[in-house]
Amino acid sequence: MRGNSFGKMFSLTSFGESHGPAMGVVIDGVPAGLSVSLEDLQRELDRRAPGKIAGTTSRNEDDKAVILSGVFEGKTLGTPIAVIVHNTNQKSADYDKLKEEHRPGHADKTTMMKYGIRDHRGGGRSSGRETLSRVVAGYFAGLVLPQVKVKAYVSLLGPFEHKEILKDLSADLSPYSFPDTKRNDEIKKYLEDLKAQGESVGGRVRIVVENSPVGLGEPAFDKLKADFAKALLSIGAVVSFSYGLGEEMAQMKGSAVSNTANAFGGMEGGISNGEKMVMTITFKPTSTVGDKAKEGRHDPCIIPRAIPVVEAMVKVVLADHFLRQNAYQI
Amino acid sequence: MRGNSFGKMFSLTSFGESHGPAMGVVIDGVPAGLSVSLEDLQRELDRRAPGKIAGTTSRNEDDKAVILSGVFEGKTLGTPIAVIVHNTNQKSADYDKLKEEHRPGHADKTTMMKYGIRDHRGGGRSSGRETLSRVVAGYFAGLVLPQVKVKAYVSLLGPFEHKEILKDLSADLSPYSFPDTKRNDEIKKYLEDLKAQGESVGGRVRIVVENSPVGLGEPAFDKLKADFAKALLSIGAVVSFSYGLGEEMAQMKGSAVSNTANAFGGMEGGISNGEKMVMTITFKPTSTVGDKAKEGRHDPCIIPRAIPVVEAMVKVVLADHFLRQNAYQI
Amino acid sequence: MRGNSFGKMFSLTSFGESHGPAMGVVIDGVPAGLSVSLEDLQRELDRRAPGKIAGTTSRNEDDKAVILSGVFEGKTLGTPIAVIVHNTNQKSADYDKLKEEHRPGHADKTTMMKYGIRDHRGGGRSSGRETLSRVVAGYFAGLVLPQVKVKAYVSLLGPFEHKEILKDLSADLSPYSFPDTKRNDEIKKYLEDLKAQGESVGGRVRIVVENSPVGLGEPAFDKLKADFAKALLSIGAVVSFSYGLGEEMAQMKGSAVSNTANAFGGMEGGISNGEKMVMTITFKPTSTVGDKAKEGRHDPCIIPRAIPVVEAMVKVVLADHFLRQNAYQI
Amino acid sequence: MRGNSFGKMFSLTSFGESHGPAMGVVIDGVPAGLSVSLEDLQRELDRRAPGKIAGTTSRNEDDKAVILSGVFEGKTLGTPIAVIVHNTNQKSADYDKLKEEHRPGHADKTTMMKYGIRDHRGGGRSSGRETLSRVVAGYFAGLVLPQVKVKAYVSLLGPFEHKEILKDLSADLSPYSFPDTKRNDEIKKYLEDLKAQGESVGGRVRIVVENSPVGLGEPAFDKLKADFAKALLSIGAVVSFSYGLGEEMAQMKGSAVSNTANAFGGMEGGISNGEKMVMTITFKPTSTVGDKAKEGRHDPCIIPRAIPVVEAMVKVVLADHFLRQNAYQI
Repeated sequence: MRGNSFGKMFSLTSFGESHGPAMGVVIDGVPAGLSVSLEDLQRELDRRAPGKIAGTTSRNEDDKAVILSGVFEGKTLGTPIAVIVHNTNQKSADYDKLKEEHRPGHADKTTMMKYGIRDHRGGGRSSGRETLSRVVAGYFAGLVLPQVKVKAYVSLLGPFEHKEILKDLSADLSPYSFPDTKRNDEIKKYLEDLKAQGESVGGRVRIVVENSPVGLGEPAFDKLKADFAKALLSIGAVVSFSYGLGEEMAQMKGSAVSNTANAFGGMEGGISNGEKMVMTITFKPTSTVGDKAKEGRHDPCIIPRAIPVVEAMVKVVLADHFLRQNAYQI
Repeated sequence: MRGNSFGKMFSLTSFGESHGPAMGVVIDGVPAGLSVSLEDLQRELDRRAPGKIAGTTSRNEDDKAVILSGVFEGKTLGTPIAVIVHNTNQKSADYDKLKEEHRPGHADKTTMMKYGIRDHRGGGRSSGRETLSRVVAGYFAGLVLPQVKVKAYVSLLGPFEHKEILKDLSADLSPYSFPDTKRNDEIKKYLEDLKAQGESVGGRVRIVVENSPVGLGEPAFDKLKADFAKALLSIGAVVSFSYGLGEEMAQMKGSAVSNTANAFGGMEGGISNGEKMVMTITFKPTSTVGDKAKEGRHDPCIIPRAIPVVEAMVKVVLADHFLRQNAYQI
Repeated sequence: MRGNSFGKMFSLTSFGESHGPAMGVVIDGVPAGLSVSLEDLQRELDRRAPGKIAGTTSRNEDDKAVILSGVFEGKTLGTPIAVIVHNTNQKSADYDKLKEEHRPGHADKTTMMKYGIRDHRGGGRSSGRETLSRVVAGYFAGLVLPQVKVKAYVSLLGPFEHKEILKDLSADLSPYSFPDTKRNDEIKKYLEDLKAQGESVGGRVRIVVENSPVGLGEPAFDKLKADFAKALLSIGAVVSFSYGLGEEMAQMKGSAVSNTANAFGGMEGGISNGEKMVMTITFKPTSTVGDKAKEGRHDPCIIPRAIPVVEAMVKVVLADHFLRQNAYQI
Repeated sequence: MRGNSFGKMFSLTSFGESHGPAMGVVIDGVPAGLSVSLEDLQRELDRRAPGKIAGTTSRNEDDKAVILSGVFEGKTLGTPIAVIVHNTNQKSADYDKLKEEHRPGHADKTTMMKYGIRDHRGGGRSSGRETLSRVVAGYFAGLVLPQVKVKAYVSLLGPFEHKEILKDLSADLSPYSFPDTKRNDEIKKYLEDLKAQGESVGGRVRIVVENSPVGLGEPAFDKLKADFAKALLSIGAVVSFSYGLGEEMAQMKGSAVSNTANAFGGMEGGISNGEKMVMTITFKPTSTVGDKAKEGRHDPCIIPRAIPVVEAMVKVVLADHFLRQNAYQI
């Protein structure tokens, strides 16, 4: 009821403050007998680690996943899987001035309004480090639906835009998750310049899903599109969600929509129809600007690091709905 | 688990097929002792009734609310409130051809994929009539937070656009819920022309909330923005959600956002901050086009009738989060 | 959160006050495509109806089930099934004196403590009529697991005791649900005498389940025994629950238990093991005694009418756990 | 949905296998700003530790609680509180023979039936060590309702019986939690003799609660008695639950019950009425008997160590229902 859990059949419960002893997650609802690879899990976590992408924060957080339960001799037991990441490299002193500071768009002020108390160090519970829990859960969700391909990529970042829907979901897009990989150097320079100016920028991410089972999504309230929207808006920096033609439909006639292939992005009546799923979300620019933003630890654009978090949440929703639908196949 | 319930502390469970005996809702979690007015409840239902707005469907559905439980001598008992609306005026024969037909963007096909069976008459469970349950719940949610003002209005409908955020939430906007009421006749003609052409159109709705308590919303997953997104995307025709500056932030610099008043639409860190809440959603055009759309029962634009549904869902989210937050004030 | 729902995958939401317009239930989670017989449903309801058993209340409540949704052409749709029973034959005036009266062991006083308001007529929400919702749900739960046999019977009622565990679950036990049917007349006379004295009596009910699937029950908290205990203690008059050898084990040595066949009543580690399930519950005597109890409407022993309610709750728990377990079989 | 969580407003999610890296619990729903004492928490854990009571297992498990999140500068933050206990002293090799062995009354066999895989070492997930999570949660539940006194004690253990309801809840009962502390030496000898014989014994525990708020418990399904029953039956060795006069009422007349003070153990209509709460549960004898039971690690009677677990579950139910009731006080 305090909002730290997500999912019904495949559920994660997240915990941890940025500068407390550890961040962690308990995942309940992973079927028994699935093979687990700690290396694969760690690889996912490393994708969101700072300091690995030029223009992203240089903190070396060294986020090593430790599995505390639920896996035995390389297989899931069907029992809850707890994974923690120790907060080893946090410099709390750096954050002392934040004690009284309330960053715009951040939870600093509203946390005090809500609880009357907070751990101000590094954003405390509201830190981006909380998304570690989601990446871990996404890894296990992927085990439930191994055939489903989920790909998120940057479709807009400053002057860089990729309008078409990605065709080859197997292509590697790193490090900026922008499909036109030839423009890597340009993006790098753009982000470095932003940082030098103490500036940040927002952007847009598109998500494509292939090979999803049909029939996922529960009307009336747990429509697949509704649960995707909730999952993605639960990421701190996300400010919009749309699917299929999305906002364009505000100005379209019904006949034009009818004549567009996959206008509804793989979901009709809130239920997956087997076509390619397409969703789009907007990220706000990070709040920290000015001299502070020029310091090492701040990202001028959070999106590249958020890509694995986005993919993870989509996988969690799919796994959850798959298990729900599976329950009623008797 | 079948998705027919919404909300945790203030929860509604919806039931009913469009051409079955009745639609209905059970609302659990309304505090005891609140005064109920059947007239006020009926007035809310009438706002979404077809045939009352030119250019909207001419079916006279006569949706009379019947309270079956939870209210005694004009007061809520704290027990579940069941309300039904009999489906008195449905002509099932009209829908016989739908048995084999699958309208694009509708649940026709995916319902079969999911359940292997459906009540095809009038959309069955996926009919827009299901939203009656939400309007009823919205009325009771309003009793929980009587001081909060929730207003939804059309900000884009074909060539008609109202860009500014509505200032006076008490102003009456009927019948098209477009703020510039002088353009009523133009809108009427526009919709009539669309209908004559067998055409439909999408649009945009903006929601403004004033006087909300601060501290509503539960990080990490039940952020207020996330629950609003889910609530609104659970409405069949809604294809996008954003809040505050929304999609504009994709192309904005951090400094520009920081310099914009209420850029985050009343929510920071997923928690209400006491400022005016602002959200925007997109409606797709209705699927029925061509000769069929020229018949009496079809709306060329669903939005005017959806406005009370949108307001209701927002109220439900607020009431639910208010009770959740209240629980922990010890 | 107000406690009117039970079950997770197979869930019922109950509503209604005894003297309001109707009692009802919404059942969400019944798989699609199951055949429904209104006659069978009505037969279950009739088993708990008053006035059909000598020594039980003579109110002719005429509880006719009306299905409002979820069933189409004799099959379940997979959508929520709403069933109501109109409260046609209630004489509210009879209950006027209850307005200020608080019967011991009843919810009269505590309802006021909790809500500050109540519908006093006929017990309002706390009336035994609420159990109609459970019997309806039990019918649909039975459709989910048609091969499972669930039988509840009176093992102790005043001087009448049946100690052995019932062998033939198909035998008809009506009207008192006491296995030794030759003693019907004695029981009848015993209950009539009790009534003439303005007296009531408690008793014991045993439940036996055959053919349950193995593997039902979820450690750690949703052990099958724990959910049975909750389901059965949620019946107003039930004051104890045990399973297998139950209370006898308080005085037994481990070796003696090990040497007893099916000592744990079909559940080990909280999970069904395929053996016959055996549970025992105690009913308190009804609270109404003295001159009032001599009036027509009062039962000297509630148990015979409660038998279908007990069976229904057991079926609901089994259906719910079966669907939960089924979800994870991928 | 896998049953590892308990409670709605005050909820705990338990994880861990007996011989995995750690056992743990995440508690969500503790209000912000409460003072936490690690010493007090540890003291509760030590009460269930083996080897501290003669006749109980001599494993020195050294269960040191480590708080990972949710507490900052000695106060609760309102964020999830994660606590782990490392499994430092487990000798997995001792359990190798258990791989193929299925102890009666244990989860050994049914775990395989359910999951098809298990961690056999020390009972794995079904080990009594799982109850650590409950004791931790009970400590935090106690912070929510500091004025409530919850006391569990042994009312029957072999030839030792204490029939009266405990009057002074502040009295210290250690080490066997039997009220008549003069009989300590007798009990010690009795348990030592049992162990020497490779025998075990069951028993009975009574729970008394004073100073509970009135109005706790939610009809129809989440009656306080129903949630207590579930909470206590979720403890592995518990095989019965009753409250108030309990099973005695099976043979009582209504007039006799009416004339008994507090016959319903502080709960009427499933709601607390302010009187002393009284509940009784039965423990089965531990399954391990014969030569194996003579080894060091086995308890001839589990009850003394289970007392803090029982108290913890009762506190969790009370805290959960208190927050639920508080939510609706607007």
